[in-house]
Amino acid sequence: MKRKSFSEMECPIAQTLEVVGEWWTPLLLREVLIHERTKFDEIQKALGIAPTVLANRLNTLVSHGLLERSRYTNNPERFEYVPTASARDFRPVLDELARWGRKWTKSSEERSSS
Amino acid sequence: MKRKSFSEMECPIAQTLEVVGEWWTPLLLREVLIHERTKFDEIQKALGIAPTVLANRLNTLVSHGLLERSRYTNNPERFEYVPTASARDFRPVLDELARWGRKWTKSSEERSSS
Repeated sequence: MKRKSFSEMECPIAQTLEVVGEWWTPLLLREVLIHERTKFDEIQKALGIAPTVLANRLNTLVSHGLLERSRYTNNPERFEYVPTASARDFRPVLDELARWGRKWTKSSEERSSS
Repeated sequence: MKRKSFSEMECPIAQTLEVVGEWWTPLLLREVLIHERTKFDEIQKALGIAPTVLANRLNTLVSHGLLERSRYTNNPERFEYVPTASARDFRPVLDELARWGRKWTKSSEERSSS
């Protein structure tokens, strides 16, 4: 099923979700911004994400200016994805998502009681 | 395509996304928390979302304890969804998403220059 685009909505939350709201994308930004993994192969391995899905999500972030694609070897050709200022400014969103998860998700309770 | 669950990941960001990371869900929480729309019909109309998708997202939030389902009329049977403390504590995440959108999305630029 094709999901509905939020691009025509004026709400800034909707606009943000249009860029970063797809499944996997916030975790991908976690890898780049918090764990400082910028290479396709290391992000793919860290997340256990299908390479085609990862390529799709990275392309979306490049097209919206959050990441800059850069080739770091030629043979074989390999790419890394360097965060720009707009991606780095997404860090407070990740921090809030983490704060909420630590406070309210069941697995947090299980972990803290074990 | 079935999306991969993040429920087995220990990361609190992943745990949060497992609850609120589906397409539409943050906008649904925006309606409930910011616009104070709690009735199914008014949320559905405000978002222009398919009723089946809205019902699915609401059920997910109820099952994770963010919303409490309450019948407000019997004939016809109609329900509203009242936010709990954990949903109200999601407001800072919405505020960060809005802040980022106002600062970095193209439509914000277009709006501010028009």
